Amino acid sequence: MHLPLDGRGPLHAQLTRALKTALAGGRLGQGSRLPPTRALARDLGVSRNTVLTAYEQLRAEGFVDARVGSGSFVAAPLMADAANDATPLVAPPQTAYARRAREVYDATLVRRRASDARLSFQYGLPLVNPALTTAWARELARAAAYTAPNYPDAQGVPALREAICDYLARRRGVQATPDDILVVGGTQQAVSLASRILLEPGDLAVVEEPQYFALRQVLQIHGARVHGTDVDEDGLRVEQLPNESPRLVCVTPSHQFPSGAVLSLPRRLALLQYARAHDTWILEDDYDGEFRYDSKPLAALRSLDRDGRVLYVGTFSKTLFPSLRLGYVVMPPALRADLVTAKWAQDFGSSAIEQAALARFMSSGGFERHLRSSARTLQERRAVLLEGLRECGKGRIEIADSHAGMHLVVWLRDRSNADLDAMLADARALGLGLYPIRPHYLRRPERAGLLMGYCGMSVAQIREALPLFARVLDRAYA
Amino acid sequence: MHLPLDGRGPLHAQLTRALKTALAGGRLGQGSRLPPTRALARDLGVSRNTVLTAYEQLRAEGFVDARVGSGSFVAAPLMADAANDATPLVAPPQTAYARRAREVYDATLVRRRASDARLSFQYGLPLVNPALTTAWARELARAAAYTAPNYPDAQGVPALREAICDYLARRRGVQATPDDILVVGGTQQAVSLASRILLEPGDLAVVEEPQYFALRQVLQIHGARVHGTDVDEDGLRVEQLPNESPRLVCVTPSHQFPSGAVLSLPRRLALLQYARAHDTWILEDDYDGEFRYDSKPLAALRSLDRDGRVLYVGTFSKTLFPSLRLGYVVMPPALRADLVTAKWAQDFGSSAIEQAALARFMSSGGFERHLRSSARTLQERRAVLLEGLRECGKGRIEIADSHAGMHLVVWLRDRSNADLDAMLADARALGLGLYPIRPHYLRRPERAGLLMGYCGMSVAQIREALPLFARVLDRAYA
Repeated sequence: MHLPLDGRGPLHAQLTRALKTALAGGRLGQGSRLPPTRALARDLGVSRNTVLTAYEQLRAEGFVDARVGSGSFVAAPLMADAANDATPLVAPPQTAYARRAREVYDATLVRRRASDARLSFQYGLPLVNPALTTAWARELARAAAYTAPNYPDAQGVPALREAICDYLARRRGVQATPDDILVVGGTQQAVSLASRILLEPGDLAVVEEPQYFALRQVLQIHGARVHGTDVDEDGLRVEQLPNESPRLVCVTPSHQFPSGAVLSLPRRLALLQYARAHDTWILEDDYDGEFRYDSKPLAALRSLDRDGRVLYVGTFSKTLFPSLRLGYVVMPPALRADLVTAKWAQDFGSSAIEQAALARFMSSGGFERHLRSSARTLQERRAVLLEGLRECGKGRIEIADSHAGMHLVVWLRDRSNADLDAMLADARALGLGLYPIRPHYLRRPERAGLLMGYCGMSVAQIREALPLFARVLDRAYA
Repeated sequence: MHLPLDGRGPLHAQLTRALKTALAGGRLGQGSRLPPTRALARDLGVSRNTVLTAYEQLRAEGFVDARVGSGSFVAAPLMADAANDATPLVAPPQTAYARRAREVYDATLVRRRASDARLSFQYGLPLVNPALTTAWARELARAAAYTAPNYPDAQGVPALREAICDYLARRRGVQATPDDILVVGGTQQAVSLASRILLEPGDLAVVEEPQYFALRQVLQIHGARVHGTDVDEDGLRVEQLPNESPRLVCVTPSHQFPSGAVLSLPRRLALLQYARAHDTWILEDDYDGEFRYDSKPLAALRSLDRDGRVLYVGTFSKTLFPSLRLGYVVMPPALRADLVTAKWAQDFGSSAIEQAALARFMSSGGFERHLRSSARTLQERRAVLLEGLRECGKGRIEIADSHAGMHLVVWLRDRSNADLDAMLADARALGLGLYPIRPHYLRRPERAGLLMGYCGMSVAQIREALPLFARVLDRAYA
């Protein structure tokens, strides 16, 4: 009897599995006798104890009967047609959701995160900060000791919701109580929960054009009809919002992603007015409003919202680091219960220890010290990058800068998207990671542009990257 | 000018908010002049610097214009009808999902988790274990130091997926590769993701009757038509599964929740046969299959699945602690891409540091040592509880025991559900938390029963609780 062992775990477990496979394969029918333990042990070159343990397990699970003195016999009829080993490797999508997910989700876009370029201007890379790592390790260990092991409150750990309110009042002009706060697993979960409670498949949702690709894809996978409204240097062109009332408008007023524009005050007011007139909800994604270099951060749109129509979404992916997966929603009163229930239904709540650690990091002042230090670092990197780009640009590029955030947009004059593709390949060959702005458009953009994140590179790396960038430019415009 | 400050954060921020409220309230129209800084400082009893900072912020945000030498003037027209302060406190449900959530979700059931009974037989309480707390704090601090801060792989940290495969092969008889594993935020998220990719609203889903209430509610909120198929002492009565093909059958084969039955081998095979004949997916919820006291844990249903129809779901809520929010799905090959995309769309992936900490805890052997020690503790508590219940039962109760898990079911003979309600109140008055099995039924159960979790009480507490339970029984049967 040939019994292939798979090498995983202890021998008796391997043998148990091999025997089950043989039984399931119909190689031993009901009532037939298993090989005597001594004989099988000798055949396989294992100890008799190993065989006894495996047989005992098969008995415990009801696969074999033991008759005293006469060995072990196959008990139950196994799989009438167990020869059917044809595990389907691909099934058609089982729901419209799954079908849309297959159409919309672009794994190559996501995988590019793990880009292996030595010098990468990728957006979304974290600001590496050993002091933060040390502080966070300490907070986690501390929180692990005092956090209740019970199921957490689905809405979020109260101490964290309290700390978020204090932070929002001080830094973002947002007045909220802990009851208004829902702790979520980052902006992505905020959008996914908002979709569930606000959008039926087929409902109209508006995003800015351009927009963060993942936000748009979540809406599309959910089944929304997604409309893009253009952005100019004052942010979303509110006057171009569709006449058909959308259920939801998603905006980045503090720092439009990716163009960098700041939504002007008249447009903020007009947007709120539009929402009121059209009975529309607004999702305000304040992903990096913390980082401004020319003035204090602007107050959030939410701070102007008198009608309770704004879902304000904040994330710690940009201010701390993305692998943390924590963010929050300041909920309109009318949607509080629905959002909390949706969070409960989606995952029962976020990890309590990490929430507790973050609460203490915020209330102890460590978080804001970290923010100030990050802003200084980012400002320095931005200055070096800006200066370098201006030097090597020589009229060939146009820099859309906004005194904020962790990225710049660079437009290429008189070059097509096809030219850009050649540049990207050129750069890659030099170990330089450049990233087009294209995936963040619903419609194909007319101009070729780059989204240049400077968060993941030190000043020294930026200085090293700039001559390479210049070389790529020179070739593209040769 | 009356400007109420709210006491949150620095004075200048409070003043900025108060001024904005005044502006938004229309108390200062476009073009009107803000009070001179000195005068306002004197009126409010704050420093002139505070007022200057607030005005500067209003200017930065575009609320006021400054004209040199002549003060600050309201810039933009604010909210034509800003008197509309009528924030709706309740909106009608905005989607069918939200409507179902309001109908189905029972906050009282969930809140009861935070029961304040001194001695609580509540199911789902964690096994408090200081050694685990210490070990976990150490693993977290260590993982924080070496885990990349970048966005994690949505499917899960590779080291954790590898460790889960090794564990599954050794302890649960499940053969899987890291590609088959999806790391999720507990069983709740597994069910929520499976619903999204397998069930359209209106589709038929089968649960066991009785079943874990939260699993059923997630399916209902998602919009499934949920059918309950009865359970007996051999687990799900597979022969009673509906003729109409369900899209999904959810089962707890290792240890039926809450009845405690183990699904017999013939029924396991019949269930797989049914799934094949009806083109049905099976969700195997192996929530506490680790803890068996009379034999080795049974191999999972998934280990018999030749057709790739079983989604095997494991959780660390029971084996470690519920506030962790980590679990996993062993995915059928045909659903791998859809499940990973759905996880990506829902939250981009679970926290990387906790995943890394868990990976190391598992691969270092700490996890299985912890499992063995937990099983010893639970077995001891179970023995004390069983013995005590048998003593005080005196023919009035029937104990459904299953040599597994962390709870027992106790049926009351000749007593109605109304009698039970009186008993629960009686117990509560004595500081004893008792919990009915009722919420875990789709249909109202014919018999009155208790779900008695013994995970949250020490042996000493169980010994203290038993005489109270006896007293409650005596009164109910007086």
